[in-house]
Amino acid sequence: MKKVVLAYSGGLDTTFCALHLSKDLGYEVHAVLINTGGFSSQELADIENRANSLGIASFKVLDVTKAYYQEVIKYLVFGNVLKNQTYPLSVSAERILQAKTLAEYAKNIGAKCVAHGSTGAGNDQVRFDMIFQTIVPDIEIITPIRDLKLSREQEINYLKEHGVVMNFEKAAYSINKGIWGTSVGGKETLTSNLTLPESAWPTQVGKTEPETIQIGFEKGEISAVNGVSYDNPVNAILKIQEIAGPFGIGRDIHVGDTIIGIKGRVGFEAAAPLIIIKAHQLLEKHTLTKWQTFWKNQLSEFYGNHLHEGHYLDPVMRNLEAFLQSTQEYVSGTVEVQLHPYRFQLVGIESKHDLMASKFGSYGEMNKGYTGEDVKGFTRILGNQTAIFHQVNRHEED
Amino acid sequence: MKKVVLAYSGGLDTTFCALHLSKDLGYEVHAVLINTGGFSSQELADIENRANSLGIASFKVLDVTKAYYQEVIKYLVFGNVLKNQTYPLSVSAERILQAKTLAEYAKNIGAKCVAHGSTGAGNDQVRFDMIFQTIVPDIEIITPIRDLKLSREQEINYLKEHGVVMNFEKAAYSINKGIWGTSVGGKETLTSNLTLPESAWPTQVGKTEPETIQIGFEKGEISAVNGVSYDNPVNAILKIQEIAGPFGIGRDIHVGDTIIGIKGRVGFEAAAPLIIIKAHQLLEKHTLTKWQTFWKNQLSEFYGNHLHEGHYLDPVMRNLEAFLQSTQEYVSGTVEVQLHPYRFQLVGIESKHDLMASKFGSYGEMNKGYTGEDVKGFTRILGNQTAIFHQVNRHEED
Amino acid sequence: MKKVVLAYSGGLDTTFCALHLSKDLGYEVHAVLINTGGFSSQELADIENRANSLGIASFKVLDVTKAYYQEVIKYLVFGNVLKNQTYPLSVSAERILQAKTLAEYAKNIGAKCVAHGSTGAGNDQVRFDMIFQTIVPDIEIITPIRDLKLSREQEINYLKEHGVVMNFEKAAYSINKGIWGTSVGGKETLTSNLTLPESAWPTQVGKTEPETIQIGFEKGEISAVNGVSYDNPVNAILKIQEIAGPFGIGRDIHVGDTIIGIKGRVGFEAAAPLIIIKAHQLLEKHTLTKWQTFWKNQLSEFYGNHLHEGHYLDPVMRNLEAFLQSTQEYVSGTVEVQLHPYRFQLVGIESKHDLMASKFGSYGEMNKGYTGEDVKGFTRILGNQTAIFHQVNRHEED
Amino acid sequence: MKKVVLAYSGGLDTTFCALHLSKDLGYEVHAVLINTGGFSSQELADIENRANSLGIASFKVLDVTKAYYQEVIKYLVFGNVLKNQTYPLSVSAERILQAKTLAEYAKNIGAKCVAHGSTGAGNDQVRFDMIFQTIVPDIEIITPIRDLKLSREQEINYLKEHGVVMNFEKAAYSINKGIWGTSVGGKETLTSNLTLPESAWPTQVGKTEPETIQIGFEKGEISAVNGVSYDNPVNAILKIQEIAGPFGIGRDIHVGDTIIGIKGRVGFEAAAPLIIIKAHQLLEKHTLTKWQTFWKNQLSEFYGNHLHEGHYLDPVMRNLEAFLQSTQEYVSGTVEVQLHPYRFQLVGIESKHDLMASKFGSYGEMNKGYTGEDVKGFTRILGNQTAIFHQVNRHEED
Repeated sequence: MKKVVLAYSGGLDTTFCALHLSKDLGYEVHAVLINTGGFSSQELADIENRANSLGIASFKVLDVTKAYYQEVIKYLVFGNVLKNQTYPLSVSAERILQAKTLAEYAKNIGAKCVAHGSTGAGNDQVRFDMIFQTIVPDIEIITPIRDLKLSREQEINYLKEHGVVMNFEKAAYSINKGIWGTSVGGKETLTSNLTLPESAWPTQVGKTEPETIQIGFEKGEISAVNGVSYDNPVNAILKIQEIAGPFGIGRDIHVGDTIIGIKGRVGFEAAAPLIIIKAHQLLEKHTLTKWQTFWKNQLSEFYGNHLHEGHYLDPVMRNLEAFLQSTQEYVSGTVEVQLHPYRFQLVGIESKHDLMASKFGSYGEMNKGYTGEDVKGFTRILGNQTAIFHQVNRHEED
Repeated sequence: MKKVVLAYSGGLDTTFCALHLSKDLGYEVHAVLINTGGFSSQELADIENRANSLGIASFKVLDVTKAYYQEVIKYLVFGNVLKNQTYPLSVSAERILQAKTLAEYAKNIGAKCVAHGSTGAGNDQVRFDMIFQTIVPDIEIITPIRDLKLSREQEINYLKEHGVVMNFEKAAYSINKGIWGTSVGGKETLTSNLTLPESAWPTQVGKTEPETIQIGFEKGEISAVNGVSYDNPVNAILKIQEIAGPFGIGRDIHVGDTIIGIKGRVGFEAAAPLIIIKAHQLLEKHTLTKWQTFWKNQLSEFYGNHLHEGHYLDPVMRNLEAFLQSTQEYVSGTVEVQLHPYRFQLVGIESKHDLMASKFGSYGEMNKGYTGEDVKGFTRILGNQTAIFHQVNRHEED
Repeated sequence: MKKVVLAYSGGLDTTFCALHLSKDLGYEVHAVLINTGGFSSQELADIENRANSLGIASFKVLDVTKAYYQEVIKYLVFGNVLKNQTYPLSVSAERILQAKTLAEYAKNIGAKCVAHGSTGAGNDQVRFDMIFQTIVPDIEIITPIRDLKLSREQEINYLKEHGVVMNFEKAAYSINKGIWGTSVGGKETLTSNLTLPESAWPTQVGKTEPETIQIGFEKGEISAVNGVSYDNPVNAILKIQEIAGPFGIGRDIHVGDTIIGIKGRVGFEAAAPLIIIKAHQLLEKHTLTKWQTFWKNQLSEFYGNHLHEGHYLDPVMRNLEAFLQSTQEYVSGTVEVQLHPYRFQLVGIESKHDLMASKFGSYGEMNKGYTGEDVKGFTRILGNQTAIFHQVNRHEED
Repeated sequence: MKKVVLAYSGGLDTTFCALHLSKDLGYEVHAVLINTGGFSSQELADIENRANSLGIASFKVLDVTKAYYQEVIKYLVFGNVLKNQTYPLSVSAERILQAKTLAEYAKNIGAKCVAHGSTGAGNDQVRFDMIFQTIVPDIEIITPIRDLKLSREQEINYLKEHGVVMNFEKAAYSINKGIWGTSVGGKETLTSNLTLPESAWPTQVGKTEPETIQIGFEKGEISAVNGVSYDNPVNAILKIQEIAGPFGIGRDIHVGDTIIGIKGRVGFEAAAPLIIIKAHQLLEKHTLTKWQTFWKNQLSEFYGNHLHEGHYLDPVMRNLEAFLQSTQEYVSGTVEVQLHPYRFQLVGIESKHDLMASKFGSYGEMNKGYTGEDVKGFTRILGNQTAIFHQVNRHEED
């Protein structure tokens, strides 16, 4: 019996896959749920129960939250990555780690196939396939939903016929929850002109009084929240989310280019990611030089796009990460952020690496470092080429 | 008597310059106020009165608001330029037009010198000098404040001795008002950790109920507000500011690299610029292709930095503007924005150039354009090189 | 009978296609040879004769050499485009114009299909399909060679059976000749370590004595050769090729990334393109500012890659062309080049836009524009941020 | 008596400085010659003799050739850095190490001043001052030649009066020799249209018969020449120079933007640097992915420019080096180069990391990795957005 490792999330599509692969196609199905921080223990128990009712050979939960942080999120923070200046890549980043973990698991247990529940219409199929064909090039990829082109109703009927008990009602909004943000899709996100209604957001606004939060960074990584140190940055992220989530902070709609060339639109709420990225970026404004900032911005945009499009294993990503890591040497200090309903405000920073340190003079005040004469000379030389250009080409202009 | 053209703003520094140049140094002083939209007619009348009391040869107001839009602001919108992802270049952009207009005026009236009131400590001296030495390389630049290194008290005493009547009290916050935003400097902005108090903001929050605003764009330029067409985009900007300003929208603190190498921090409020740029950017997300967006972002960051640092006349700026202009061909449509106290939310867009047009299929749903098989082939080829790379170099990794 | 427009080159593959489409599949075949400058009139006559023996409905030669220059080559010169610093895109550039012309021809004559002879293994299939699906999205694309996966022998047998008379011998080297260079593939180019033998090069070395050539440029376009003006730059290119070709100049081997992800290697000879690009680039070194050069280089590399990969119709290409065009305003003057067997040497330039004009001082000599004091001030300010950075972070380093 | 450390090269300018500082100004002069590989032991002995006749306190030769390679040249090879696609930065790279070593030496011996012989007209003054003000911000910089603005004749007279014996004749060409190339300036390089005569080149052409050379690389660093391993890459560079120099390879004229804004032109011969860079780049074409190549090119251009302009200590340079280093992981193998008089030709490479490895199929031939159907799907998706763009906007175009 051929072993297949199935990426199992407990939803309709992968439940169908589990049953179909074991019952109809006779595979030895090893269902794996890759947890990147989006599941509670109750949810995991429920999913395990269901999985075990589908005739599969094994079910396993792999918690890769820490690896998710170390291999992906960390660099998204270093790069202040917000796709299209908006979206923290909540879903795309997660898929990378899931696919990678699955591929390695399949290799370890000697599976001949991997299966995932992606349809033929989205980004995820590309992300999964790209990583599988790279890490386990000799293993067959099976995608029943994509290949059978079944409708939701057909899947439900099939499961009902086989006695599977689960909630078949379609939620008004499809939600994908993770530590780096929760996506929200619904009928409004299929249009260009409508926004999500208040009720669609998974986290409702429960706090109305402003709060202040202090986030500590050590070489670019989150190391403390409100004075409490965190060895594991994942816990710091969860803490920030716990504090800031009830303010309804970090809600937005991402519009962008999907891997397959059409435009897509999706809502998301990501209080912690937004606050962390903006706080980190403010600290960088104080501690990096002009050209460090310039090149970080140029490269991070590509890094985010390339990750989004499933190219995580292109070695250029490791090269860009080496660059990003290197820029974080002195990005240490504390950032104060004020939280309000639906918004937050960066207050300021403290850092022993602050290049705005007053001993070099405040902007707008003269200091010991240079004189007005220096600036005159500076300007004369700095503008030399442009001045020559216009003198040489003046006759053309007049 | 040598003619000097003086950039006159009506403030302490340039009032000192006017008097000093005419009385002490015997110049024929032609004071010019370059209005880029930051002065009311009452303010202009007051300034003219004062100017005429200083022994100068002439005083003139040159209104260049329209040119300011056409030559600078337009491209800042095309490029969605926010320095360090934050600051719309409210002050820097204005200085460019002021210097350029002054230089051309000096050439026209045959002046031998131009004078400005910059100190030796800031960005403006560089911006002014760079443009003067390029447009009027044979004209002498005079900067009394920078050269004499006078303290505020010394300037005031001098003016009092000469009978000049004006308000010598130092405001708690120095304000620079313009149509592309108002900067606010004070004791907090000289620190790294304090933010401006509510009272420091020139526009106080007077609206509390949400409002919706519709902004029309035609080839990237603002063409309508709430259904009313505007031939002159400057008036549309003023209208948006009038509507959105009382919400306290667009307040932030910019931290960045000054031209002279130190870090600087300045508050600003810029409701209209922020709303316009974000609305324009949303319209672009729907109408530009992936690589148009990528390169616009890469180039606009440099464009904004280079402008900020006074390099407006470097011909590369014209080349970048040609690029930006070319990208706007189909950036036409209407963007809906919801205004709330201290924040705004982009609702959505309507455009006949919307690439998300439903006839090509919605993201996540299959469509006539391609099949799951196509995507499989796509992925196989797209990931080909990375897969080969890992196969070739696997022995190294294991 | 369904009309099909076939890209016909007279070679084995497209001859097979013509016969197969008309005889076996019953199409009304309209064969079109798109001439981008690589065919002599004798060759064209021979091809026409053969075409007319294949049962097709019509044969037409469309000479698009001028459009090829105006729409493609011109920008490759503006951008000094050499893929991987080596290859002038001799073949890739040509395919673009061929596909575009074919698509428009198909639209004009109301064809329901277009056909091309590409195999399933190369870049050309992607270039053709990309342009067809964009310009004529409703027209079916037929690719018999790719679909039938026929071997060379099978094609030959088929043609012999149908009485087609042509030279069926396989040349040791496959040659693709065009005005922007000739590609040469053979058994050596399938390896990584062998170069082409002398005999493989289509143009043998016949000149041994050095010659000097003067190339005139007007706003970046070739306008004169050895003092003779050319209205049509195509003729200037041909003239330069005629002079320089017999020196064996511009021979090299390109190694690079194909569109489909594997590495490819191909020889080429391109005397005129290499000389023109290097001469143009030298003129730019004298007439452009530092940042114009920087951004031209950054953008041109992407422009060349994107063109190579068939993305000519992505609107970002028009935007980049607008940038490139804008940079050429003052790229006018004459460049002297010395030709030797196998190599050439740039001698120098003359241009009224030369920024090295001696009136601004020679490098290494003091001049009226600035003083050593100016440079001291310049350096102090220019290095200010780096100096501050090291002072702030010194304690870390010691 | 105040200690000054003087950068001493043995030439006219620094000989003047040594005497002037000790005799006229009463400094305790510590002359240091920083050898980056451009001096023979005979030359060093002569210079030491002269130095000791100038009344100085000490003379020291610091050989930093190895550090020069490790801290600068290595990255120029990784980045294939040729400024303006031409110049290996022979002089600029050397100055960095010289200034850095001098500054550290001054700090170590507790000097209060550093002195260098730069004039006020060139790049070197900026490079020296930038590094001094960063590493030793509290130490005074003394530049007698720049400050006294002496003519060559005045310097000679002064030295003669003080009994200094040296060759005062001005060479027709000023030469700066180093392991990364030798610059040649003369009357022709002050023009835009003349090239250097054959006799001006320091290395005359002595070899006429072609030779083949094999260069081994290990993680991007030169590790072998003609099968002989080198632990110290500096010796490999010297060996390649010894073999290739007599062919007259690597001669060219660099035209570019000086730090002070004017255009400069300088001849150089750099056989080893050119051959090494081009060989290294060819190996990269076989071993890096498409996007590694793209970003290496984008970043290396900036890296080279920034180094050229004296910004070596900007921390962004360390970040870019981290990127470059990371890209070299698999750049190992052997490159064969054929040497001819005045030119060289890359033959090919051998590497176990070659991505062109035949087991993945040769370009142009079908292979097991994918099918023509895959490419069709690939193309359909790849061109999807551009096709949609043109469909949406077609009405505009027709």
